[in-house]
Amino acid sequence: MGLNRGVSIVGAGMTRFHNRIHMDKTGRELFVEAALEAADAVDHGFRFRDAGALFVGNFTSEVFEGQGHIAAVIADWLGINPIPAYRIEDACASSGAALNLGAMSIASGMTDIVVVGGVEKMSRLNTDQVTDALALAADSSYETSVGFTFPSIYAAMASAYFKKYNTDWEQLAAVTIKNHRNCVLNPKAQFQLDIMATAQRMGEKSGRIFKNEMEFLKSDLNPIISSPLRLFDCCPVSDGAAAIILAADDVAGRYTDTPVKIMGMGQASDTIALHSRPDFTTLRAAVKAAEDAYKMSGFTPKNIQVADVHDCFTIAEIVATEDLGFFPKGQGGKSAEEGRTALNGELPINPDGGLKAKGHPVGATGVAMAYEMFKQLRGQAGKHQVQGAEVGLVHNVGAAGASVAVQVFRRG
Amino acid sequence: MGLNRGVSIVGAGMTRFHNRIHMDKTGRELFVEAALEAADAVDHGFRFRDAGALFVGNFTSEVFEGQGHIAAVIADWLGINPIPAYRIEDACASSGAALNLGAMSIASGMTDIVVVGGVEKMSRLNTDQVTDALALAADSSYETSVGFTFPSIYAAMASAYFKKYNTDWEQLAAVTIKNHRNCVLNPKAQFQLDIMATAQRMGEKSGRIFKNEMEFLKSDLNPIISSPLRLFDCCPVSDGAAAIILAADDVAGRYTDTPVKIMGMGQASDTIALHSRPDFTTLRAAVKAAEDAYKMSGFTPKNIQVADVHDCFTIAEIVATEDLGFFPKGQGGKSAEEGRTALNGELPINPDGGLKAKGHPVGATGVAMAYEMFKQLRGQAGKHQVQGAEVGLVHNVGAAGASVAVQVFRRG
Repeated sequence: MGLNRGVSIVGAGMTRFHNRIHMDKTGRELFVEAALEAADAVDHGFRFRDAGALFVGNFTSEVFEGQGHIAAVIADWLGINPIPAYRIEDACASSGAALNLGAMSIASGMTDIVVVGGVEKMSRLNTDQVTDALALAADSSYETSVGFTFPSIYAAMASAYFKKYNTDWEQLAAVTIKNHRNCVLNPKAQFQLDIMATAQRMGEKSGRIFKNEMEFLKSDLNPIISSPLRLFDCCPVSDGAAAIILAADDVAGRYTDTPVKIMGMGQASDTIALHSRPDFTTLRAAVKAAEDAYKMSGFTPKNIQVADVHDCFTIAEIVATEDLGFFPKGQGGKSAEEGRTALNGELPINPDGGLKAKGHPVGATGVAMAYEMFKQLRGQAGKHQVQGAEVGLVHNVGAAGASVAVQVFRRG
Repeated sequence: MGLNRGVSIVGAGMTRFHNRIHMDKTGRELFVEAALEAADAVDHGFRFRDAGALFVGNFTSEVFEGQGHIAAVIADWLGINPIPAYRIEDACASSGAALNLGAMSIASGMTDIVVVGGVEKMSRLNTDQVTDALALAADSSYETSVGFTFPSIYAAMASAYFKKYNTDWEQLAAVTIKNHRNCVLNPKAQFQLDIMATAQRMGEKSGRIFKNEMEFLKSDLNPIISSPLRLFDCCPVSDGAAAIILAADDVAGRYTDTPVKIMGMGQASDTIALHSRPDFTTLRAAVKAAEDAYKMSGFTPKNIQVADVHDCFTIAEIVATEDLGFFPKGQGGKSAEEGRTALNGELPINPDGGLKAKGHPVGATGVAMAYEMFKQLRGQAGKHQVQGAEVGLVHNVGAAGASVAVQVFRRG
């Protein structure tokens, strides 16, 4: 099934993602910063009073900031009362889900314009506390209660993948190296160093020189977090927000001559616990969400020219590129190693640096991906522009794939 | 604006609301219990595989149960993977908001049938911890950080109301007495005693006899919580879940000959902090949400024959009956005192006992109100049936009115 009424993005904004520079800001302030940038990005101008609803993706500001009811808080801070404000939570897929619901609210006839965004302010907690907070998205009865947190959940996927396809950790390292190359070209990214520069800087402190990226990534400076995943296989802790303005296609022309149209969207669920699934090397919800999004869009994986996928851990990017139909099963890692997913490759994946190097303020990620597509498909992505891209896809995963949202966009 | 496609309730279920009997159950289990009852209530039968999406209203299972990502957890426990599962949070209006979004998803064309529910499992925490958890819905920067929690926020509203209209606490007591009379007739309600029976039972323990309800309510057995609010002005802590099945009007006939149609719906926001508002004796978001819902429905307050309003504190019911246009400003309390809102009054309010006496598992409340309308408008409400009711309204408030959802229903 599809939408009764077409919907496009007419403006997009995001804060820089970072773990320190936003220390003194609250989540509500970060969201406002992103939303104001989104409004400024609307070619023919935008006033927030044109919006009929606000959708806020957020995982757990209750735990991260001691603030629930975050959509109402943000509506107030944006000064857009009394429009309805909805907070959507699907773990790390919160704002991808918010995007789908925002589009549906327009297609339902209830409104013509909505503001959709996401935010997470994580840096008030230390890394252990963040790991525990994120683990709230796993199964409290059967996973976290026995010590299974996300690094170990994704490590289990990586181990299963290596065993099934007789591959190894070096394929993961290829993803790390690629995404850090991309982040250097993206001023919004948390990290601004590629792996070689990182190796130099970290090596200097202990008087060591690394000949190449792989030597550094195999060293004790890249320690095991949960075998086989090492530190640089994991996305960082980040603060940040992203926002987009969605308009019905029939009114989008008031705002821009170059909208980015939602061609297809999908969302699916799977068992909350990893152990309930027959195969750890695929996310069934990603396969289903993508299938629905492709069907609605009329496109196939071959039509996609750029994609942002949910690389919370490097293994997740490899699995994603297979689940989305970009590469055959078992070939995702090899494709990364061969440079096929590099910025100048046949299908650039995460040109913005991905969650791995751009950062992952969890509730913001799905809309930050849509922000990237808005820029890419309008030719405004700067140094990390994928030349000539007109069709793009985003893939936003909640937890270990119990929720997945996918959208396919095309320059309008 | 309205929905492009009509939507009706075709089934509804709820657990009993209670603070102790569900101690050994998780929120996911409570939701499944309510959803199975909703499916059983579908006249011509319902299979969950007919549903295209799940909407779960929940305030903060993260804090109450150590479980986030609750929509995905529930989709798994219901066995309805891979359909999309969305968790909606708007504080105590979470499932009223979920109902609105569920209806919009059907009208958008993305699906024909959705399951919408709400759940909160609060009893794992003690009362102090629950008060703190609920306070996450207020402004962390400017209210809770200085000790302002919901009993005191609503107490400030009551004080302002008394001053403005030169009335007193006895009007609040009239609401308490009425809602406890109603709960005795509702087997799903947490409390099963009216105030006179409560006075007898509580009096026995200390060897005291109360001549009437008011004598008890003015005694030290009904202590001040936050002046002028006393214990029996506050809703209890509750566990519970409620679920409804929504269908597009064009397919509803497959499920029942007696759907309950959503005639109008509205949602609005207001400042998160009470102190930002010019008047504490009205919730502007309730006025706006009701205005939108009435307009869409074609009805006026005079057409409403039964209503469930959000009486988290007794003062809230009085303000609600004015905000919704049932009584002139300043007359809500007097109307309650005069019995006009009693079960046999001209406009029965909270025939199920209301949040006050039915209980208030916060995320479940909005859909539990819709459950009540499903029963009332089909003539299935048993001992608390409002005779001949065909048009009803529900009013679900988040926090101190920063989010309000309203729906108007009619027997189809």
